[in-house]
Amino acid sequence: MRSKWWGWGREGESYHLPAPERFWSYVRDRMGETKPAERLESASEITVSPGRLPDGVISELSGLVGVQGVSTDDAARAVFSLGKGYKDLVRIRRGEVPSPTDAVVTPATEEHVLEVLRLARRHGLAVIPFGGGTSVVGGVEPCGDRPSITLDLAELSRPLAIDQHSATATVQAGIMGPDLERFLNPGGFTLGHFPQSFVYSTVGGWIATRSAGQNSTRYGAIAELVQSMHLAHPDGLLTTPNVPAAAAGPDLVQVITGSEGTLGVITQATLRLAPLPEHDDYRGYLLPSFAEGVEAAREIMQSDISPAVLRVSDETETESTLALRAPPQGFAGVVEGVGRWYLGRRGLSLESGSVMILGFEGNEADVRHERAAAKRILGRHGAFSIGKGAGRAWKRGRYDAPLLRDTLLDHGIMVETLETAVPWDRYLALHAAVRDALYGALGERSVVMAHLSHSYRDGGSIYYTFLAPQEKGAEVEQWERVKAAATDAIVRNGGALSHHHGIGAEHRRWMPGYLGEQGAGWLSAIKTALDPEGILNPGKLVPPSAEASQPPPAVGDG
Amino acid sequence: MRSKWWGWGREGESYHLPAPERFWSYVRDRMGETKPAERLESASEITVSPGRLPDGVISELSGLVGVQGVSTDDAARAVFSLGKGYKDLVRIRRGEVPSPTDAVVTPATEEHVLEVLRLARRHGLAVIPFGGGTSVVGGVEPCGDRPSITLDLAELSRPLAIDQHSATATVQAGIMGPDLERFLNPGGFTLGHFPQSFVYSTVGGWIATRSAGQNSTRYGAIAELVQSMHLAHPDGLLTTPNVPAAAAGPDLVQVITGSEGTLGVITQATLRLAPLPEHDDYRGYLLPSFAEGVEAAREIMQSDISPAVLRVSDETETESTLALRAPPQGFAGVVEGVGRWYLGRRGLSLESGSVMILGFEGNEADVRHERAAAKRILGRHGAFSIGKGAGRAWKRGRYDAPLLRDTLLDHGIMVETLETAVPWDRYLALHAAVRDALYGALGERSVVMAHLSHSYRDGGSIYYTFLAPQEKGAEVEQWERVKAAATDAIVRNGGALSHHHGIGAEHRRWMPGYLGEQGAGWLSAIKTALDPEGILNPGKLVPPSAEASQPPPAVGDG
Repeated sequence: MRSKWWGWGREGESYHLPAPERFWSYVRDRMGETKPAERLESASEITVSPGRLPDGVISELSGLVGVQGVSTDDAARAVFSLGKGYKDLVRIRRGEVPSPTDAVVTPATEEHVLEVLRLARRHGLAVIPFGGGTSVVGGVEPCGDRPSITLDLAELSRPLAIDQHSATATVQAGIMGPDLERFLNPGGFTLGHFPQSFVYSTVGGWIATRSAGQNSTRYGAIAELVQSMHLAHPDGLLTTPNVPAAAAGPDLVQVITGSEGTLGVITQATLRLAPLPEHDDYRGYLLPSFAEGVEAAREIMQSDISPAVLRVSDETETESTLALRAPPQGFAGVVEGVGRWYLGRRGLSLESGSVMILGFEGNEADVRHERAAAKRILGRHGAFSIGKGAGRAWKRGRYDAPLLRDTLLDHGIMVETLETAVPWDRYLALHAAVRDALYGALGERSVVMAHLSHSYRDGGSIYYTFLAPQEKGAEVEQWERVKAAATDAIVRNGGALSHHHGIGAEHRRWMPGYLGEQGAGWLSAIKTALDPEGILNPGKLVPPSAEASQPPPAVGDG
Repeated sequence: MRSKWWGWGREGESYHLPAPERFWSYVRDRMGETKPAERLESASEITVSPGRLPDGVISELSGLVGVQGVSTDDAARAVFSLGKGYKDLVRIRRGEVPSPTDAVVTPATEEHVLEVLRLARRHGLAVIPFGGGTSVVGGVEPCGDRPSITLDLAELSRPLAIDQHSATATVQAGIMGPDLERFLNPGGFTLGHFPQSFVYSTVGGWIATRSAGQNSTRYGAIAELVQSMHLAHPDGLLTTPNVPAAAAGPDLVQVITGSEGTLGVITQATLRLAPLPEHDDYRGYLLPSFAEGVEAAREIMQSDISPAVLRVSDETETESTLALRAPPQGFAGVVEGVGRWYLGRRGLSLESGSVMILGFEGNEADVRHERAAAKRILGRHGAFSIGKGAGRAWKRGRYDAPLLRDTLLDHGIMVETLETAVPWDRYLALHAAVRDALYGALGERSVVMAHLSHSYRDGGSIYYTFLAPQEKGAEVEQWERVKAAATDAIVRNGGALSHHHGIGAEHRRWMPGYLGEQGAGWLSAIKTALDPEGILNPGKLVPPSAEASQPPPAVGDG
C-alpha cells in the first residue's frame, strides 16, 4: 500500500499544527464542541462481501500476471475500492465498503494490460484502472452490477527515455510525481505539473482525470503537456502520433485526456518538458478585498505575464489562514509585526482582506521583468507586500492540506473541498452563489472559504473548502446533501462541473445539465461506440442514461 | 461570389511582381520554356451534370430559407464544389467539375441550418458546409453517391458580442477574418489569428479545419482560441459550456475542432481575445544554414520567449526569395547594400544561407525584453541582422503568395504547397526526406523550397512550396503523383499528416497509416456513432473503410 489506508499521506504522517491551541479555539468558536469519529485499528479488520469471480477466472488472471499479481483478500479489495474524498474516508475508516472490487490485478507489462482487458471482455468483467488512488470523485469505486477487476498500475511505473533535443520524456503511466521529477531534474528538465496529490498520484491518473497542477498557469495543465500516449483497449493498443501539433481531425489525445478509464487504460505517455527554472520568486500580498484580488489576477492574466502560481484567498480563507495555520515566522508573523494600525491606514484589514500568493519561475531576468509588470498592476489595486516569507510558507505546505483533513475527521469535523472555473464576468457572482448554497446546506456551525487557484485570460477557478460538525450516523447523507447543493449552484451559475477534480461517479448525474442534452448524448454515443460492452470503468463520467444498454453476460461466458 | 472563381483573391487582383524580368529569367533557368495554360473566360461558360434533387426537395428548401437562398444554376454549383488547391484550380479554370453539388443553400439563421440538416436526413442528402471555400485538401468537394447540398454560411456572419471583462467575443461562424478584426480592434482586442487565407476564410472554417495562423506562436492556434461553440446537428443544437477550463471528460470542443463538417455545422463560436499589441518589432536575419536557423528557433522556443512570428527559410527558399520576390527596398536590397564580401567574411552567403523572420508584439517593454533574449541566442548561431525592412516586407506580403500561383499557372507552371510538423529530433531528416521525394517525383526541371513556419517547445512545422512545368493533358495525374510521393515521405518519417491544412478528401487515405489502425478505427467509430446516416460531409477526413456502411436511402424518402 502506497499510502495510509484510512486517510492522506503515508502511515505515520500527520499534519503539523503550528499553533494547536489557537487552532482548536477557532474551531470551537465556529463549530462548538464536536464528538470524535471512530476508526478501525487496521485494514485487516475490514470484511467485504465475497468476491464474485469464479476460480477459473482467478486462475486465468494468475496465469497472465503471476500469482503475486492477483490479490483477492478483503483488505486489498477494500482499500482499492475507494479514493480519498471525504465520503471515501468516512466509509473506509469504519470498514464500510459497500461495493468492493473482486480482484486487484497488478500487470507488469503493457501486454499484460491488454491481456487482462481481453479476458475481461470475454467474461464481461468491469475493469477499473487504479494509479495513485487519490480520486475525490469516486473515480476508482466499482459501480454497477458487473463483477470487477481493479488494475493496479504500480508496476508499470518506469521512466523510459528523455529526448533532450525535443524536450520530451516518455514514461510508463504508473510513475508517481516525485519519481518522474527525479528522472527529469538531472537533465535540467521539469514537467512543472504539481497537483496537490503530486506525491501520491501518477502520470496516467493525471491524464485520465485531465488534471491541473498548482503551477499550471505557467507550465500548462496536463492536457497541454501530453504530446502522445499509449492506450490499452480490448481491441488492441492505441498509440497517438508523436508530433508537436496537427490538423488531422479531432484530437484523439484530447478525447483520451479526461476519459477517466472509460475508454481504456493509459499505459504510456510522452510529455512536453520545460527547463528546470534557475530562479524563483514567491511572495505574499494583502489586498483590500477578494474582489480586488480577483480583479488584479484578471489584469495580470490579460497582460503578458505568466506567473507560476497566482492564488487569491477570499476574506474567510484569509482570516482563517492568517489566524490558524500560519506559523509565527510565516506571513501571519510578518503582518502582525508590521502592525495592524499601519494596515488600517492603508485601508487593509486581516479580517476583511484577501491574501494573494504570486510566484514566478524561470531565468532571473525574466522573473524580474514579469514581477515588475505584476507589481504595477498590484499597486493599482492597493496590494501590500507581506514578503517572501509568505511565499515560502505556501510552498512549504503546498501538499499538506489534505493531512489536516484527517486530523479534523478524527475530531468529528466534516471537511471537504470542491471546485469549478468560470469566466471573469460571472466570477464573483458564482463565488457568492456557491458559498451561500454551502452555508445554506451546512447550517450556522460551519466555515466556508475559497480561493482562486488557476487563472486564464478568460476566467479563473474557484476552490472551496468547507467545515462543519459531522452529523453522527448520517455522515454520508450529510455530505451528499451539501455536495448536491453546491454542485447545483455551480451548474446553475454556469461554472465548470469540475476544473480539475474530474467527474467520476460523484458528478456524473450533473453531466446532462452541464453539457446540455446534445453534449451529454454525444459523450454517451462516443462511449458506446468505443466500449460497446460497457466494461471500461462503468458508472463513471458518462451520464447514467447511456450505460448498461446491454445486460452483462454471465460470468464464465466466452 | 466572394472571390475569383478561377483563382485566389478577388476579381481583378493579381500578384505584383516587383522585378518581372529577373523573376521570369529565374523560372526559365530552372524550368525551361513552358506553355501557357488555357482558362475559360467566365464561370457562366461552365456546364455541370444535371442536379439530382427532385423538385419537391428544392421547393422544401426554398420554403425553409427563401427562394433567394437556393441556387441550382451551373455556375454556382461548379464554383461551390471546389476549393483553392492546385488540383481545384486546374479543373475550375477548364470548367471541369466532375462531382458538382446539387444545390447551394444559404441559410440566414442557425434555425435554418438545423432545418436543412433535418431535411437532409429525411431525404438522405449529403450536407457540405462552405465558409470561405479556401480548402486546399478537397474539403468542400462533393464525394460519394449521395445527392448533396452545399451550405453557404455567408449570411451567418454577424459579430454578436464582446465580453470586455472576460476578453472573449461571440460571433456567428460565417464571419470572415477582416470583419472579425474590424469588430474587435476598436475595443482594443485582437484574435491574433492570421492564416494565409485570412482575408477570405471564416471563423467556422478555421475551427472546422483546426487552423493555425501566421502569429499562432504567440496567440495560439484556433484550437486554443475557441472557448465554446454552437454546432448544428440533425439531432439538434450542441452548445459547449462557456467556461475557461474544465476537467469534465473528453473535451467536446476538441472533438469538434478539426471535424471538417463531418460531425455537424459550426454556427457560432466564443473566442478568446488578446489585447491589440501596442507595439511590434519584425526583423530579418541571415543565418549560415537552415540547420543553424532551425537550431536557433528551437532554442528560442525552449526559452521563455514567445515570438509572434518565427519563420526560417531553407537555402532554396532563401535564394529564391532574395533573388526573385523581394522588392529592392526589402531585405534583398539591404543585404546587397551591405555587400556580399562582408557576408563572406562572416561565413554567410545568399546562396547557401537561411533567412529568418522574427517578429514580436506586445507592450514595448515586453517586446524589448524578449527581443534581447532572442538576440543572444541568434548571436550564438552566427545570425546577421538584415533589419526591419525585411520584417516589414514579409508583413506587407503575408497574404499575397497564393496570388503568385495564379500567375504561374497562367504560364503553365504547377505550383503547390504542403506542410507537416515534427519533433525537433527528426526535423532535419524529415525536411530532407520530403524534399528528396518531391524532387524525385517532379524531375530536374523543378524547384522545391521550404520553411519553418510554426514552432513549439517540442518541434516545428515545415511548409513546402514546389514548382515544375505542367504535364499538359495530365495535370491532375502529375499533381496526384507528386502529392502521393510527398505524403508517403511525411507519414513514413513520422510527420503530422497535416499541421494546418487539414485532411479533407485528399489526405484521408493516409489516415490509417498516420493514426494507426486503432486510432483510425476510433475516428471511424466516433463518426458512425455521431452521424449514423453518413450525411455530414461524407468522403472527408474519416478513413475510407468506415463509411457508407448503410446504403443511401432513395431520394424522396421520409
